[in-house]
Amino acid sequence: MTNAPAMNVGDIETPAVTILLDRMEANIARAQALMDAHGVDNRPHIKTHKIPAIASMQIAAGASGITCQKLGEVEVFVDAGIADDILVTYNILGEVKTDRLMELSLRVKRLAVVADNEIVLRGLSEAGVRHGRDVPVLIECDGGIGRNGVQTPEAAQALAQMATNLPRIRFEGLMVFPNKGPETAAFMNKALELIRADGIAVPVVSGGGSPALMTLADFPMMTEHRAGTYVYNDLMMVDAGAASLDDCAMHVRATVVSMPTEDRAIIDAGSKVLTRDQYTLSNFGQLVEHPGAVVANCSEEHGMLDLSRAQSKPRIGDIVNVIPNHCCVVSNMVDEVYGVRDGQVETVWPVAARGRVR
Amino acid sequence: MTNAPAMNVGDIETPAVTILLDRMEANIARAQALMDAHGVDNRPHIKTHKIPAIASMQIAAGASGITCQKLGEVEVFVDAGIADDILVTYNILGEVKTDRLMELSLRVKRLAVVADNEIVLRGLSEAGVRHGRDVPVLIECDGGIGRNGVQTPEAAQALAQMATNLPRIRFEGLMVFPNKGPETAAFMNKALELIRADGIAVPVVSGGGSPALMTLADFPMMTEHRAGTYVYNDLMMVDAGAASLDDCAMHVRATVVSMPTEDRAIIDAGSKVLTRDQYTLSNFGQLVEHPGAVVANCSEEHGMLDLSRAQSKPRIGDIVNVIPNHCCVVSNMVDEVYGVRDGQVETVWPVAARGRVR
Repeated sequence: MTNAPAMNVGDIETPAVTILLDRMEANIARAQALMDAHGVDNRPHIKTHKIPAIASMQIAAGASGITCQKLGEVEVFVDAGIADDILVTYNILGEVKTDRLMELSLRVKRLAVVADNEIVLRGLSEAGVRHGRDVPVLIECDGGIGRNGVQTPEAAQALAQMATNLPRIRFEGLMVFPNKGPETAAFMNKALELIRADGIAVPVVSGGGSPALMTLADFPMMTEHRAGTYVYNDLMMVDAGAASLDDCAMHVRATVVSMPTEDRAIIDAGSKVLTRDQYTLSNFGQLVEHPGAVVANCSEEHGMLDLSRAQSKPRIGDIVNVIPNHCCVVSNMVDEVYGVRDGQVETVWPVAARGRVR
Repeated sequence: MTNAPAMNVGDIETPAVTILLDRMEANIARAQALMDAHGVDNRPHIKTHKIPAIASMQIAAGASGITCQKLGEVEVFVDAGIADDILVTYNILGEVKTDRLMELSLRVKRLAVVADNEIVLRGLSEAGVRHGRDVPVLIECDGGIGRNGVQTPEAAQALAQMATNLPRIRFEGLMVFPNKGPETAAFMNKALELIRADGIAVPVVSGGGSPALMTLADFPMMTEHRAGTYVYNDLMMVDAGAASLDDCAMHVRATVVSMPTEDRAIIDAGSKVLTRDQYTLSNFGQLVEHPGAVVANCSEEHGMLDLSRAQSKPRIGDIVNVIPNHCCVVSNMVDEVYGVRDGQVETVWPVAARGRVR
């Protein structure tokens, strides 16, 4: 955390990413209370903020550990002293990376990883043997989203058996992303039944997803939950019914630099800040100050506002706040974010793990 | 430029962005020859590479200057000694930024900017008066793409008149992006006719776009051309018929980390490297080694390969090369790129202007 000199939010040069601290703190507390109520460990995914100071706030609020996606992220968080309990939800493959994993494991009380195939599992075992250390492993399951993960409960069982038998692998359980619906629950229950029938203990069942915070009751088999987006929230969370606009803690400040037509204005934040992530949404963000005004398109440095359904219109030179579609990817575009409270910049955080894709 | 120790391309940890130097050099030479043949000045846009060393190669090949989009980019290139002739194709607005512009102008022989509205133009004039320096300005026209720019030739004429009369503004001409088609040519010809009929000289008419390199003959009114993408090329250029796959100098190296089904594999490069830019394309990249294999979807750290139409299939652990949709935005995702020739890493370039959005 950098202590910023006294600075009014209006003095931040645009484009800039601001975090409304009151909202973020409320988001952290609300999610923690929800997971406490369901008796599930909270293991926030740091991909959303990529900032160790915010992870520390999540841990102080009750989180049991953190989730990282890449080893480069782990390095940043361990360097910052977050070193109790880290899960890497990614297949770590190749000697260079498994050596990095083992070296990092010397600095973390528990550093666990996932595997969804035999090649990755054998590579982790060989790394454990090379370094003389156990590797805690969860088997990643495809709970219905069609990305990574074993495709059947039987395949999960087979990998769990292999993990139990391979040297230096410590089989700890199952992982899935996201908790999608009844098909995810059925998959996990069946896999657990098969693995336990083999006499293998499954201490950890790790679910994930921020919208899935609303459906924790449907996944009683989970022992922990990994959510990232909830810390800031965004339009995808609002679209999913999992947050309101007033829960969105990330605002992208931008200046209106052009107004070529009555209904089209240009802001100085384009895809290099907002990104072009859309998923279920049809635009690239919406304006706080002008309900109905949307970022209808964006090129790298231009955000094109469609004002045709706006209740009011900005003017050239105005600073506006954009709620982005997907806050996690916006964090990755900037070197720092401004923590704001009551119109003052309270802190400037470097996005320490930005760009750590390896 | 960082002199890298002798390193085989196979030793680069994935994901990584590589630049095939033979291809890049051929792209630079081919575009320069084309512009020379049409008697148009070549002012490459640095947004594609964001690397001063590559701008120096473009200038050595004959470029008359460079184009930047944001002042933060200008700062990086001027710091690196590229300081003869820079055009900023962006409305620079607000005293903080116009002061930065004027301070930078002390370090560049000619630092020109654009304006597409009266408020920006007046702000530039006031900055020129504050700093006691002339500001070279082009009026930005909307040649049919519907982004920035004055909407009619008459509006261009009116702004040119105002620019001529405002203190410290040195009206230099017109700018448009991109050279789209006959409508762009008609707009520019009419605007030039109106402005010249007012007795105002128009020394510069600046067109742009990499696909537009194929249609330079249709825009004889242009005195210079700004293209960016041509230096690397990408699938959007191939889709536009302006490059072949063998002209694509940027390859994203990635490792296959999972193969959940027969036709689905996962690589360790997702939207944090490839971005989700699609424009006219339906995927997020295609594989060099496996024709027909495409990046069908991507989340932040996962690229999802669809192998259903692939002529061959990779295996878990394989390193593959992805040709991205849009090379400019990929440059912005990484801190360095690897310059490769004959399978060896010849240089590692920091992407010096990455993330300079202000």
